[in-house]
Amino acid sequence: MKIPKAIENMIEAFERLPGIGPKTASRLTFYLLNVPEGERTLLAQAVSELGEKTKICERCFNIAEGNDKQETVSDKGTLCDICEDRNRDQSTICVVEDPLDLIALEKTGRYHGLYHVLGGAISPLEHIGPEDLKINQLMSRLKSEPVKEVILATNPSLEGEATAMYLKRAISQESVANSRNIRITRIARGIPTGGDLEYADELTLTKSLEGRQDF
Amino acid sequence: MKIPKAIENMIEAFERLPGIGPKTASRLTFYLLNVPEGERTLLAQAVSELGEKTKICERCFNIAEGNDKQETVSDKGTLCDICEDRNRDQSTICVVEDPLDLIALEKTGRYHGLYHVLGGAISPLEHIGPEDLKINQLMSRLKSEPVKEVILATNPSLEGEATAMYLKRAISQESVANSRNIRITRIARGIPTGGDLEYADELTLTKSLEGRQDF
Repeated sequence: MKIPKAIENMIEAFERLPGIGPKTASRLTFYLLNVPEGERTLLAQAVSELGEKTKICERCFNIAEGNDKQETVSDKGTLCDICEDRNRDQSTICVVEDPLDLIALEKTGRYHGLYHVLGGAISPLEHIGPEDLKINQLMSRLKSEPVKEVILATNPSLEGEATAMYLKRAISQESVANSRNIRITRIARGIPTGGDLEYADELTLTKSLEGRQDF
Repeated sequence: MKIPKAIENMIEAFERLPGIGPKTASRLTFYLLNVPEGERTLLAQAVSELGEKTKICERCFNIAEGNDKQETVSDKGTLCDICEDRNRDQSTICVVEDPLDLIALEKTGRYHGLYHVLGGAISPLEHIGPEDLKINQLMSRLKSEPVKEVILATNPSLEGEATAMYLKRAISQESVANSRNIRITRIARGIPTGGDLEYADELTLTKSLEGRQDF
């Protein structure tokens, strides 16, 4: 039996998404085949509008609401909510890998500075070098903005650590060259709340000891 | 920070799919945000065309290619490839839960009869009764078609077994009432190829012993 072309296309489209294999792709396709027409329309519309109605902040590369239908993701010229908020501390920039990390930090409600979204981390294995990230744009901001502290909040993974190291060196050189005094900090690593020392890896425990604080 | 509406819509649309939780939904959304426009268009198009270009076979309820753009999933009036193929054995009907099961059986290339897709299995927990499945339509086929054997190929799960039991009773009553002689068979259960007796559950082992064949 030949599988209808529309079904094959749908399965292939789902398979291209990360973490979705052939089995899940067919399961999702046959699920969609059985839902009411309106449900499929909503999904198709959400995908189409994702690019049309979203913009990237020209300053920090966070996602921003795009009001004008004509503009697309690639059109720049808007600031995100955070950059537009003049009440936020303009002297601190928190550097994250992607907008999801930024949202996670915002949810804590404890950070009131600005952000800079790199768009990933340095990863030689995936052929992602410093030039593929928004690092030059960060350096420009350091020159033009009254920055006193840069918090490196890349993930504590191999790639995230490499990126943090690279940024530390670049920012230090920049500070020396322009006789600026920019504090560079890294988010604390240690045992997560609710975690168990028994199951923690050695590196995490080491970081947890090194980062101990007066109690 | 307020998450842009288009992103929220996309996350919600993904979350409505089975097996996709909030974390995966955001991950997929941000992945899609970074792919080229064309990739999103392909996905949106595949979703839209899924219903438009696919039809349900009016005889066996398998999926069928819909050529006419005007027609949608709900419009009937076409037969699937299998029902249209007069070379297939018209005296055997294999009853399956959904089109994916049918495709799996077709891949073996060893079955040359017809199918009947129920559209699920009887499941009181999910409020799916016999009337929600294409069981009446199967009974009509048994009356009008020269059927000699019905192979019950519902899944060997609790729901699939219950459905097979229900069908067995219904078909037997039908056969007696119309003095027809329809053979009712159930697909064999046992140790799968490459499986290990040591790890097989007791029910599978029991079925495997009961179903033993001369060697």
